[in-house]
Amino acid sequence: MQQSALLDPAVKRSVGMVKTDKVIFKGDDYVLNLESGKTLSPITVAYETYGSLSPAKDNAVLVCHALTADAHAAGYHADDPREKPGWWDMLIGPGKPLDTDRYFVICSNFLGGCKGTTGPSEINPATGKPYGLHFPFYTVKDMVKVQKWLVDHLGIERLFAVIGGSLGGMQVLQWAVSFPEMVRGALPIATTARMSPQAIAFNEVARQSIMSDPQWNFGLYEPDRQPSSGLSLARMIGHITYLSEDSMLRKFSRRFINGSRRGYKFGADFQVENYLHHQGSTFVERFDANTYLYITRAMDYFDLQADYGTLKKAFSQSRCSFLVISFTSDWLFPTAGSRELVKALGMAGKKVSYCDIDSDQGHDAFLLPGNRMSEVITGFLTRLEKEG
Amino acid sequence: MQQSALLDPAVKRSVGMVKTDKVIFKGDDYVLNLESGKTLSPITVAYETYGSLSPAKDNAVLVCHALTADAHAAGYHADDPREKPGWWDMLIGPGKPLDTDRYFVICSNFLGGCKGTTGPSEINPATGKPYGLHFPFYTVKDMVKVQKWLVDHLGIERLFAVIGGSLGGMQVLQWAVSFPEMVRGALPIATTARMSPQAIAFNEVARQSIMSDPQWNFGLYEPDRQPSSGLSLARMIGHITYLSEDSMLRKFSRRFINGSRRGYKFGADFQVENYLHHQGSTFVERFDANTYLYITRAMDYFDLQADYGTLKKAFSQSRCSFLVISFTSDWLFPTAGSRELVKALGMAGKKVSYCDIDSDQGHDAFLLPGNRMSEVITGFLTRLEKEG
Repeated sequence: MQQSALLDPAVKRSVGMVKTDKVIFKGDDYVLNLESGKTLSPITVAYETYGSLSPAKDNAVLVCHALTADAHAAGYHADDPREKPGWWDMLIGPGKPLDTDRYFVICSNFLGGCKGTTGPSEINPATGKPYGLHFPFYTVKDMVKVQKWLVDHLGIERLFAVIGGSLGGMQVLQWAVSFPEMVRGALPIATTARMSPQAIAFNEVARQSIMSDPQWNFGLYEPDRQPSSGLSLARMIGHITYLSEDSMLRKFSRRFINGSRRGYKFGADFQVENYLHHQGSTFVERFDANTYLYITRAMDYFDLQADYGTLKKAFSQSRCSFLVISFTSDWLFPTAGSRELVKALGMAGKKVSYCDIDSDQGHDAFLLPGNRMSEVITGFLTRLEKEG
Repeated sequence: MQQSALLDPAVKRSVGMVKTDKVIFKGDDYVLNLESGKTLSPITVAYETYGSLSPAKDNAVLVCHALTADAHAAGYHADDPREKPGWWDMLIGPGKPLDTDRYFVICSNFLGGCKGTTGPSEINPATGKPYGLHFPFYTVKDMVKVQKWLVDHLGIERLFAVIGGSLGGMQVLQWAVSFPEMVRGALPIATTARMSPQAIAFNEVARQSIMSDPQWNFGLYEPDRQPSSGLSLARMIGHITYLSEDSMLRKFSRRFINGSRRGYKFGADFQVENYLHHQGSTFVERFDANTYLYITRAMDYFDLQADYGTLKKAFSQSRCSFLVISFTSDWLFPTAGSRELVKALGMAGKKVSYCDIDSDQGHDAFLLPGNRMSEVITGFLTRLEKEG
């Protein structure tokens, strides 16, 4: 399955070279009133677009990214020597499910990210130094408000679809609830309407890893002196939750690094340990520790049920069609949470399709080829177009 | 269920005041040849016994403890002002499943522990300083060898039963395989014949937490200057894996500490975070960081299948009756691993009873009242006695 997907010419088709644009929202019209009660201004948003906006401006698809991604969802950056395509390139491009011959695809780094949009690692114009812990707490609702500014800025009154996985899926749900008149189709994938205490617990251990690292220094580290061991540990913890017991067994089993038996040592002896170390150390090179604290907190605080009384009430104001996708082996945001979503949408009288995709890839399945996600998305969007 | 168990007079019955004994194994007869190829001598073993050894010496039950416990399995220590009973007091005492009116119950701190038995935190007689990282790597097989010395020392030729949960259950399995002629009944609970890569991954993150703490100092810390934040983190990670998603929901849900809504802060805001912090900080007071590294490695290395070719081969030499117990919500050592055990025992032609106990308490269920474990154990031991 995985191999055939890679050989699929659709997967190889690319939007080609792309670049990240920036727009600065400043002035009195753009003071963001955050849920925490704080305000923030100005706000820079980094974003990419693929394909062309139709004359009727009715073909825009907003892609929302997850915890550690960025605006670079598809294609290649000329200045990237590794030439790795964007993080959801398997879905975005000519002939792919988010078909850039038909749709105008937008992806922005969300508010509080560390990939070009205003966030804890960016310079606070008031002080000339990185915000660090002076950055206000933000929520998924706040992220979505800023995305709306971007969509308005692009001259789009209504999005054909909003799609995202994990934290991206939370943004999708929030879009459907916050700006019902602006969304035709909502595709929340591998997500939940509220974080479980277990997921909060994992986030808290990750944050404590970072904050326990003396190099964290209460958030006052230089960009080139990150709390690397703490951030690496946080990523290692995360990665365990992104895989599944079965996928780990398949990928690593109990194999040792040196083929032989026990090395009688600490540090990496098993292949699974090597994998985690690699994930941890490469993450430090591309992500900011303070930002990790803020984003995980935004996830923890996400709770549509608490915000609107009940899930049914939350969704009663939405006006779009939904496609909910979950993966059978996702134990971070388990299928049960998606079923709860689907049930509430049904009770609220909304159009909803649901697909629980059989996969052993765990939570990460939404980022990986080799499962039915692409076909399911294509089918939903095609139907949505026909509905007119 | 939980309440009725607490009201059960059997749970309240106690072996009373007890104390931890020590025996030192030294001299040429007691040089331990470790699996790693190293040797160790002398070896002190801390142990407790409850009840009386029968004249026929046929009523001894060996209790094997898990990762962080000790020899104090039942009753009270006169010098313990908190007067908390031993860690498995709910099972051990007059009229309880391990009935001290009938059985002579033995529990020792295993080799490499930090509760009185020779281990990394104890003084190396050759240097006068704690062993620290000079302590040799040890395995479950090595632990069991030392337990056999103790059993021999107590004049017991054959154990009526060996029982333990989690890492304790691994020792039970190893007993049945290493010393088949010495075991009549084996009760491995909430355990596995080999650690999954996911469980290894959690252990590795815990070890990295400790080793990333500068106070760890390559194992050369003073006993009163432990790597407390790293050890605390390790314990927090462990605790998530000991509970279940459902038990966390039941215990903490998404409740905030201050009743009100979001505190917009890092650190403990949700009750589940408070719980983890408490578990972490109290652990530092009672456990040694280097020891945590060694014991988790011993767990990682445990793999009866690799040691003996197949599980069936491993068990073919055993001569006891087995009672395997698992818990439906245990995702650290899931039911599937116990089923594998039971299947292999069946294929090896051994007597085996299996009970998968319905519980939402996760891995910790074997330490908690409120499930059917007590009755199942009582039933098995009663039958075993009758079999004579």
